[in-house]
Amino acid sequence: MADDPLVVFTPSGKRGRFPAGTPVLTAARQLGVDLDSVCGGRGICSKCQITPSYGEFSKLGVSVQDDALSPWNKVEQRYKDKRGLIDGRRLGCQALIEGDVVIDVPPESQVHRQVVRKRAEARDIVMNPSTRLFYVEVEEPDMHKPSGDLERLAEALRVQWEIENVQCDLQILQTMQPVLRKGGWKVTVAVHLGDSNTPPRIMHIWPGLYEGSLYGLAVDLGSTTIAAHLCDLKTGEVVASSGIMNPQIRFGEDLMSRVSYAMMNKGGDQEMTRAVREGMAQLFTQISAEAGIDQTLIVDAVFVCNPVMHHLFLGIDPFELGQAPFALATSNALSLRASELDLNIHPAARVYLLPCIAGHVGADAAAVALSEAPDKSKDLVLVVDVGTNAEILLGNTEKVLACSSPTGPAFEGAQISSGQRAAPGAIERVEINPDTKEPRFRVIGSDLWSDEDGFAEAVATTGITGICGSGIIEAIAEMRLAGVLDASGLIGSAEQTGSSRCIQDGRTNAYVLWDGSADGGPTITVTNPDIRAIQMAKAALYSGARLLMDKFGVDTVDRVVLAGAFGAHISAKHAMVLGMIPDCPLEKVTSAGNAAGTGARIALLNTEARREIEETVRQIEKVETAVEPRFQEHFVNASAIPNSVEPFPILETVVTLPEVNFNTGGGDGAADGGRRRRRRRG
Amino acid sequence: MADDPLVVFTPSGKRGRFPAGTPVLTAARQLGVDLDSVCGGRGICSKCQITPSYGEFSKLGVSVQDDALSPWNKVEQRYKDKRGLIDGRRLGCQALIEGDVVIDVPPESQVHRQVVRKRAEARDIVMNPSTRLFYVEVEEPDMHKPSGDLERLAEALRVQWEIENVQCDLQILQTMQPVLRKGGWKVTVAVHLGDSNTPPRIMHIWPGLYEGSLYGLAVDLGSTTIAAHLCDLKTGEVVASSGIMNPQIRFGEDLMSRVSYAMMNKGGDQEMTRAVREGMAQLFTQISAEAGIDQTLIVDAVFVCNPVMHHLFLGIDPFELGQAPFALATSNALSLRASELDLNIHPAARVYLLPCIAGHVGADAAAVALSEAPDKSKDLVLVVDVGTNAEILLGNTEKVLACSSPTGPAFEGAQISSGQRAAPGAIERVEINPDTKEPRFRVIGSDLWSDEDGFAEAVATTGITGICGSGIIEAIAEMRLAGVLDASGLIGSAEQTGSSRCIQDGRTNAYVLWDGSADGGPTITVTNPDIRAIQMAKAALYSGARLLMDKFGVDTVDRVVLAGAFGAHISAKHAMVLGMIPDCPLEKVTSAGNAAGTGARIALLNTEARREIEETVRQIEKVETAVEPRFQEHFVNASAIPNSVEPFPILETVVTLPEVNFNTGGGDGAADGGRRRRRRRG
Repeated sequence: MADDPLVVFTPSGKRGRFPAGTPVLTAARQLGVDLDSVCGGRGICSKCQITPSYGEFSKLGVSVQDDALSPWNKVEQRYKDKRGLIDGRRLGCQALIEGDVVIDVPPESQVHRQVVRKRAEARDIVMNPSTRLFYVEVEEPDMHKPSGDLERLAEALRVQWEIENVQCDLQILQTMQPVLRKGGWKVTVAVHLGDSNTPPRIMHIWPGLYEGSLYGLAVDLGSTTIAAHLCDLKTGEVVASSGIMNPQIRFGEDLMSRVSYAMMNKGGDQEMTRAVREGMAQLFTQISAEAGIDQTLIVDAVFVCNPVMHHLFLGIDPFELGQAPFALATSNALSLRASELDLNIHPAARVYLLPCIAGHVGADAAAVALSEAPDKSKDLVLVVDVGTNAEILLGNTEKVLACSSPTGPAFEGAQISSGQRAAPGAIERVEINPDTKEPRFRVIGSDLWSDEDGFAEAVATTGITGICGSGIIEAIAEMRLAGVLDASGLIGSAEQTGSSRCIQDGRTNAYVLWDGSADGGPTITVTNPDIRAIQMAKAALYSGARLLMDKFGVDTVDRVVLAGAFGAHISAKHAMVLGMIPDCPLEKVTSAGNAAGTGARIALLNTEARREIEETVRQIEKVETAVEPRFQEHFVNASAIPNSVEPFPILETVVTLPEVNFNTGGGDGAADGGRRRRRRRG
Repeated sequence: MADDPLVVFTPSGKRGRFPAGTPVLTAARQLGVDLDSVCGGRGICSKCQITPSYGEFSKLGVSVQDDALSPWNKVEQRYKDKRGLIDGRRLGCQALIEGDVVIDVPPESQVHRQVVRKRAEARDIVMNPSTRLFYVEVEEPDMHKPSGDLERLAEALRVQWEIENVQCDLQILQTMQPVLRKGGWKVTVAVHLGDSNTPPRIMHIWPGLYEGSLYGLAVDLGSTTIAAHLCDLKTGEVVASSGIMNPQIRFGEDLMSRVSYAMMNKGGDQEMTRAVREGMAQLFTQISAEAGIDQTLIVDAVFVCNPVMHHLFLGIDPFELGQAPFALATSNALSLRASELDLNIHPAARVYLLPCIAGHVGADAAAVALSEAPDKSKDLVLVVDVGTNAEILLGNTEKVLACSSPTGPAFEGAQISSGQRAAPGAIERVEINPDTKEPRFRVIGSDLWSDEDGFAEAVATTGITGICGSGIIEAIAEMRLAGVLDASGLIGSAEQTGSSRCIQDGRTNAYVLWDGSADGGPTITVTNPDIRAIQMAKAALYSGARLLMDKFGVDTVDRVVLAGAFGAHISAKHAMVLGMIPDCPLEKVTSAGNAAGTGARIALLNTEARREIEETVRQIEKVETAVEPRFQEHFVNASAIPNSVEPFPILETVVTLPEVNFNTGGGDGAADGGRRRRRRRG
C-alpha cells in the first residue's frame, strides 16, 4: 500500500495523493471537489455521502482494494443504524482514505448540482444559492474573556467555515441568545453569503442541527398577473407555483393608464404600491400554505417586472416613465430587505430585482436575456417577449441590442370583436380550405377539430364563446392564405371571394368563422376592424425587430425565440404569414414559455447569474423606438400582410400567398395590395 | 515672475509650485491642504474662502507681490456684491495663482477644524463628520443612453467628488426624481461617507445649493436620565442640549430591578424597549424644537449607555446580563438605521453605538475611555465614572484595565435617611469644626454658609430639605476629621465626643447636622445606617480600583479623574478621607464632568475616533470583579474610613485623622478601629 494513496473523484475527474488516514471530505475540499457538508465533518448531517468504487479502473489508472477506505467507525455506524444509508454509500467526513480509491460524488451531495431545465435547447441551471446552512459549535461565554455571543458565533463561522466578517440584523441579535443556549452552543446558521458589495449575513439560527430546507421565491410581477415559483434553495426544485391577478388592475388595465392614474390622483402611486404589495403578501401566504412551509423559511426572493411595475412596487412614482425621455429612477439591479417592501417572508430576506435595460425595457426583459442568453448564442437570435408591450432582443456573442415596442392588447384578444382571454370555449386553432374557403377550428377544452365526429358533444359544456389571441392570428393568416384577405388587410366580399362566409359589415366585409345562432350561441366573425387591430400590433412588433436588424446591419436572423405565455401558443407559420416576425426557417422558430419567470428562477438559484446578467445588461445596446425615424417607415411597411417591402423568401417555399386585391378604390387598402411583391433574394 | 509660482499655505505650512493660472483651491487639493468646498469650485458656496498675505515673508522665504493672485473675475465679484465677503478674503476656487504667494486658510474654511474643549487637560476634537454636503451637476436623461437618475447622480459624485460606489436607501429613490428636476439637474447631496465596511450612502438631496447645516445627536442613555447634545456637523458646535428622565424608571429604579422586571413579566423587556424609544422620540422632538431645526436634518447619532440599557434600547432581552457569566448579545460597536430603532430623525440616519467593554462595562465606559484617553496618558491615570455602577479604568500608554463595581445608589442620596437628589434645599457642602464639633454647611440654591449673615433669608424659599450625594460625602468625611466618627464607621456618643450633636439613635448614635424643628422643617441627621450605606458604596468603588492596581502591579496611581455628573461635585479631599479613591496628590484629582457624553460627542464629530475606540476597547483588559477573590479582601479593608490596611501617606500630609474608637465591644465596628494604621511608604 502506498504511503500517499491516490484519490480520484468522479464525475469531476479531480485527483490527488493524500496521507493515509485523510477523511474523504478533507481530500475533496483540498482538491476543490464539490462535496456538500452542513455539519462541517461531525458525522451528523449526512450531506457528504459518497460512493466508493472498487476494482480495476484502467482508464483512470487506479486499482482499488476492498480496504481502500477505513472500516466503519462508531459515528458512521450509529448514523447508518439510526437514520439509514443507501447501500454502498459512506459518510465522506468519517471514511478515511487508506489506499488508492475512486470516489463518486452523487448529485445530491453536490452543492453546485445542476438543475435540469425542461427545454432541450436551454442551459441547465447550476445551483449556487445565496443562502446556505452551516452547523457550528460556539464557544461558551467566559467572564474572564468577555465578548458578545454574536462575536463568538462569528468566530465559529470564521474558524469552522472560513466565513469572514459575518454581519446580522437587529432581529437576529434579538432572538439569538436563547437559541444558542437551547442548542447547548451547537446551532445551525443560515448565512446569506454576500458578494463583493455586501458582507455575509446571518439570516436565521436554529438550535442543534436543522435538517429542513431553505426556500426562495422567483416572482414574475406582470401588469396583469403576478406569478411566483417557490424553490428549494438546496435542490433547486420548484415546490409550489402560484399566481394571482395584479390587484392594480382596478386602477387601469394597461401600464399607461396606471401611470395616468398616478398623475391624475394625488397619492395614486402610493395606492397602487399598497395594492401590489398587499397582493404579493396574499400570494406568498397562498404559495407557502400550498407547500406547507413556514413563510419565515423563505430567505431569498428575485423579482422581474417591467419598469412601471418596478417603480410602483418600490414605491416610486412612475411619472417620469410616462413621458420622454422615460427616465428611470434607477436602472441598476437592487438588493433590498423584505421588510422594506412589506413582504411577509423572512424579514431579513434579501430581495433582488434584476436591472432594467431602459425606460421601456425592464427587469423582465433582463430576465429573458438571462434565460435565453442571446449573448451566448453563436447564431443570430431574435428573442421576442410578446405581451401588451413587446420586449425585443437581437444578438449573438458579438453584441446584443434591445428595444420595446407598444404592441397593445390585441394579441391578448382585447380590441377584437369576438376576442376573449384564452379560456375554455375560445377558438385557438383555425384552418381554412383555400379551395372552399370553409374553416375548421379547435376550441380550448377539446382536442377535436370542428369537422370531426363528436365535436359538438365535446364542446357542449363550454360552448364556442369567442376567439383568443393565438386563434385570431391563425384565423387572419389562414384568411390570407385562402385568398379571402388581401395583403393590405381588406377582406373580400362574397362576390370577390366566391364564399358566402364573407359578409358585408358596414362599409367593409367580415368573415364568419362560426355561426352559433342555431344553438343560441354567438356568431363569431373576423371583421375588418379586427384585422386593423392585429395589423397595428404585428406591425409594431415587426418594426421593432426590423429596427434592431438595421442597427445590427443584417437583413435576416438565424432563429427566433418567442417568449411569454402567449408566445407558447402561437404557430410559427401563421405568425410568419402575418409578418409578425422576420422570415426564417420555421423549425428555427421556438417557444421559450415564460422566459422572464425562468430568468427569475435562474437568478434565484445561482447568485453568480446575477452578476452575469448585470454585466450583460451593461453591455446591451438600447434602442429607443419612439425617436427612430426608420421605426415609422418599418411600421408602415409592416402594416401589409406580411409586408409591403420585405421579402419572405423562406416562407414562400412553404406557403403560397395568393395575389388578391380587394381594394375597390374607395377603401383604405394599400395601393400595391395584391401586386406581386418584388423578391430581393434568390 | 516665475513660471511656476510658489504657494505656501498657513497654518499647515504645506507648500508647492504650480503653473501660473492654477486656482488656489486646486493647489490646496493637490497639496492635501484642508480647504473646504461644497460646490466643487463653482464659486457659489463660498466655503473655500482664503486670505492671501502680501509683502516679505523671510521665514518662509517668500516675497509676495500685489498681483500674486489674479484680479477678481465676474463670478467672484458677483458673489462679493450679492453676498458679501470679509475684507481681504478671496474665493479659493476663483482666485488664480499668478505669482509666489502665502495663503492663509481661516478655521471656518477647514473641513477638519478643531473644536476646542473647555477643559484645559482635554484634547481638542478634530472635525471629521460622517456626513458632508456635496453640490453636483447631474447629466440629464437621454433616451439614446438610457440609465437611471440615480446612476447619473452617482456618476456625478464619482467624477466631481471622487466618491465611488455610492448607495442609497429606497426612501431616496422614492423622492429623488422631482428634486433633480426642481434643481435643474443641480443638487446638493448629503453623503454619509462610509468606511471600510460600508459604502458611501446618499442621505438627502436638495434642489440647487443647500446652504443650511446637517446635524447629529450625541446621546448619553443613562438608567436614570437620557441626555442629548445636538451638534452642527460642520462646525462641531452644540446647538442645543436637553435631557429627560428615562421613562423606564417606572419598571425599576436600578438596572437589576429592570432585568428582574423582564424576567418576571412576559414581554416586560419589550415594554421597556418601547418606553425608552418613546422617551427618546420625545427628547428628540424637544431638542429639535429648541434648536428650531427640522428633525430630518439630523443624519447621524451616537449612543453611549451601560450594557443593560444597550440591550433594552436595541430590543434585546437583558436576561443574560442578570447572571454570570453576564454574556452580552454583542459587544462590538453597532451601526444601525434610525428607522430600525423607531427614532424620529432622518429615517436613514446612521445610529452608532460604541462597543461594550464587558457584560458589566458598557459603551458608556468606552465613551469615557475615548474622552479621557487613558491609553494616551504617559502617567498612570485612574478614571472613575461614579454612578449606581462605577466604571473604573486604569492605565497609561502601556495598557489599560477596566472593571465595574456595584456601588449602589447611596452616592446619589438614595438609602440615606435624610438623602435626596441634588436639588435646591439640599445640603451640598459641609464643614465641622474639630474643636467645637459644630457644623456649618451650604445648600443648593445659595452661596452662603449656614453661619454667614443672611443665610436664613437666602434659604427661606427653598428650605433646608435634606442632603445630597456630595453633601453626605463631605459630612461623613468631616465627621471623621472632627473625631465624631471612628475609622470603623461608628459615631461616638455625646459622652464620647463631648458634643450634644451626637445623639442616641436606637442602638447606635447619629449626628445632628441641622435641627429645623423650630421652623417646622426636618431635622437632618447622619445616622449610623447612613454611614454603613456610604461605607458599602465607597468600599465597592475603592476595591474595584485597588483590584485594577493589583492587576497592573502598582500600589499608587499618578492621577485620578472623576467622571460623571456626581464626580463633578465631589471634593477631592473628602473623597480621599473617605477612602473612595486611592491616595494621590489632591491637585492630581480632577473632574471630567459628563465624560461619557463627551465621548459620544467626539465619536459623533470624528468618525475616525470610532475606529480608534473600537481598537482601544479590543486592547483593554477586562477584569470581572465578581469572580476575583482579592476583590472581597479589598472590600473588607476598604470598609474602614479611609481603609484598615492601605496607607494614605499623601493625604496625611494634608489632614490629620484623629485616633478615636467608639467600639464599646457590643457593636459591629472593626476590631482595629482607631488603631494607628501602619505606613507602608515614607
